[in-house]
Amino acid sequence: MTLSTDPYKGVRDFYPEDKRIQQYIFDTWKSVVERYGYDQYDASTLEPSELYEAKSGQEIVDNETYSFIDRGNRRVTLRPEMTPTVARMVAKKKRELAFPLRWYSIPNLFRYERPQRGRLREHWQLNVDLFGDTGIDGDAELIAIGYDILLAFGLTKQDFTIRINDRALIKELFERENISGDTAYQLQKLIDKKNKIPDFDDQAQALLGRQFNFDLSPNEQIEKLIERLDSKGITNVKFSSDLMRGFDYYTGTVFEFFDNHPDNNRSLFGGGRYDNLLDIFGSDRVSAVGFGAGDVGMRNVLETYNLLPQQTRSKPAVGICLVDEEAREELISASKLLRDSTIIVSVNTTLKNPRNLIEWSQKSGYDFTILIGEREASEKIYTIRNNKTKISSSIISELVPSWVKQEWRKDDNS
Amino acid sequence: MTLSTDPYKGVRDFYPEDKRIQQYIFDTWKSVVERYGYDQYDASTLEPSELYEAKSGQEIVDNETYSFIDRGNRRVTLRPEMTPTVARMVAKKKRELAFPLRWYSIPNLFRYERPQRGRLREHWQLNVDLFGDTGIDGDAELIAIGYDILLAFGLTKQDFTIRINDRALIKELFERENISGDTAYQLQKLIDKKNKIPDFDDQAQALLGRQFNFDLSPNEQIEKLIERLDSKGITNVKFSSDLMRGFDYYTGTVFEFFDNHPDNNRSLFGGGRYDNLLDIFGSDRVSAVGFGAGDVGMRNVLETYNLLPQQTRSKPAVGICLVDEEAREELISASKLLRDSTIIVSVNTTLKNPRNLIEWSQKSGYDFTILIGEREASEKIYTIRNNKTKISSSIISELVPSWVKQEWRKDDNS
Repeated sequence: MTLSTDPYKGVRDFYPEDKRIQQYIFDTWKSVVERYGYDQYDASTLEPSELYEAKSGQEIVDNETYSFIDRGNRRVTLRPEMTPTVARMVAKKKRELAFPLRWYSIPNLFRYERPQRGRLREHWQLNVDLFGDTGIDGDAELIAIGYDILLAFGLTKQDFTIRINDRALIKELFERENISGDTAYQLQKLIDKKNKIPDFDDQAQALLGRQFNFDLSPNEQIEKLIERLDSKGITNVKFSSDLMRGFDYYTGTVFEFFDNHPDNNRSLFGGGRYDNLLDIFGSDRVSAVGFGAGDVGMRNVLETYNLLPQQTRSKPAVGICLVDEEAREELISASKLLRDSTIIVSVNTTLKNPRNLIEWSQKSGYDFTILIGEREASEKIYTIRNNKTKISSSIISELVPSWVKQEWRKDDNS
Repeated sequence: MTLSTDPYKGVRDFYPEDKRIQQYIFDTWKSVVERYGYDQYDASTLEPSELYEAKSGQEIVDNETYSFIDRGNRRVTLRPEMTPTVARMVAKKKRELAFPLRWYSIPNLFRYERPQRGRLREHWQLNVDLFGDTGIDGDAELIAIGYDILLAFGLTKQDFTIRINDRALIKELFERENISGDTAYQLQKLIDKKNKIPDFDDQAQALLGRQFNFDLSPNEQIEKLIERLDSKGITNVKFSSDLMRGFDYYTGTVFEFFDNHPDNNRSLFGGGRYDNLLDIFGSDRVSAVGFGAGDVGMRNVLETYNLLPQQTRSKPAVGICLVDEEAREELISASKLLRDSTIIVSVNTTLKNPRNLIEWSQKSGYDFTILIGEREASEKIYTIRNNKTKISSSIISELVPSWVKQEWRKDDNS
């Protein structure tokens, strides 16, 4: 019996071309959040199931996550989100940490999706969180980071809208209107989908048994936040009273980056303020604001706007091939010369014929090919093939590193 | 009831100081392997259990890995090693890939260790593999990469020994001596522990029922490999006939980096040639050589040799604090000025008293503290505190970025 070469259902293999794109996304995320002083943390993929059950209940955890019982009779879950983990870690060392505290992570997260929905069961997500009582400044900073990330990828502010809301507005409205319990929960769900339901008013009326006038104005909090963002030059902001961002955690400001592209009109990522999450650990209250952005959505945006980087590797790469066994010493010294100049060198000593060697270098995606034989060893002049232009040049061996770098930069800009 | 803040049994939380060390290890690994033309790949943590059972049998998989049955009745395993995954991925796209093929990955791996042994259940591991028929050159390249990695971390060649062996030697010896089946397996196990068993000869005799003369000389293969390494300047190499490196996969050369430190005399990491692994996918034979190096062992080495980097962040970090609400505009423009110069800026707008603000900056591990008040806003001269030397300097605002960078480099070298 032969084994299948397919990955497990609903997860991805990352061949080098896909890994490079993912790495580019991670590197861009990191460079922006680190500029704002966020430090990277990490944790295990495995967490005690109780960590999620505290907020979501055991049934949801059992049905929507990968959870199992280990041989020590512990219930274990593959983390479906990072926020409970970061809350746990902050609660554990609360006395030793300095607030405001800025942390980020890029974990892989697991959800037990039904296969037929075609959704992924594992994805990666940037998580950025600011802990400590930072008020509107904190909200504005997290939004500015999301904004800077999209600009760092090459989007312009015309490409997206930042929708903001305050969960307190809905809470007050419900109190005024005496809406509570399951009705409140159902109505929140309805409001969350408001833009997608043409008969929202009718459905709300059916739910409440009376007319429901959903017309909220921004409060002082939101007005100040919009002003604060404006002073940072962030003007593509819109108060959206129907923005809910799910039902868990969030206690105040919520925000969402919304793609204006006509083919792809949808939420890119978002977050909000959650001030009570550390309570489950018996910790003193620590207010927090954060957001999460997934790798799949981010890659989709880059594809929609044609912003995927062209450069395949971060440095020039040379496939260097031996064509005469006698030239081996020359191959070793040439490889060293290039590597010492931080050029990527992949050697081929299979002694196949030159056509095969060039094909190997081209197919591997290297930028240049050098064949080293007896002539190169004695004359110290190499013939370098640019795999993109297919043009070959003869260069004195010691000048090869600088020539390669210059030629590579030229190709990059063309 | 309050929840525990502990992670799951046997796994680690990475607070920023630990994550930075891990990241430094990852970055060093990456920079060396990429110089040799290795491309990064990745895959999901979840794999079908069959992938491991093909070589190890269901019982070992059930007992030593995290395996469970999903709701689609699929048996799933949290990968305990990366080699079966990379073999699967290469087999899947064999026709599209160009050989020799150079790939690396830094996956997290899971093993179900009994808690009392105190060993970790999740760790990260660099996996470097070269596919395609590369013979001794391939073996020499993988060993050279391991060597370069240890040198990149600051070790010298006197600090470690590269032990090498050829599994074919043992195989031939067993054939000559008519040793096979379970006896051969038990004897291999014994040879693997030879250095730790003082009465090896007696135990071997007891097992075989006759005298066993374990005295092997290097074959031509090993002699050539030692010569090839010598020509690269790698001379701390030793033929070790008792080196086995486990019992799976390996079909030829095996090697191991062995720490010479008197307090820590042990194997650091190793690998070898495995030429049959793609067979389980019904693929044509693809020969391969590779090694794996764990993050825990690597950190231990750096601690043993006192080689952990002192620098906490890769760039200078400034804690910048607002002391008068009226100076907010100045704070925003100062932050922008510094960030535009790729300096890390963490702001504090809590308006606490200066002593608290400096304490926050110091405790957060930032290199410098700047307090921005009305005076700074009007005079455009900032007082910058070096958190390491505790000395404050007055600098014209526009010169602050270059001053910070220069001062930081000075501290780094001191």
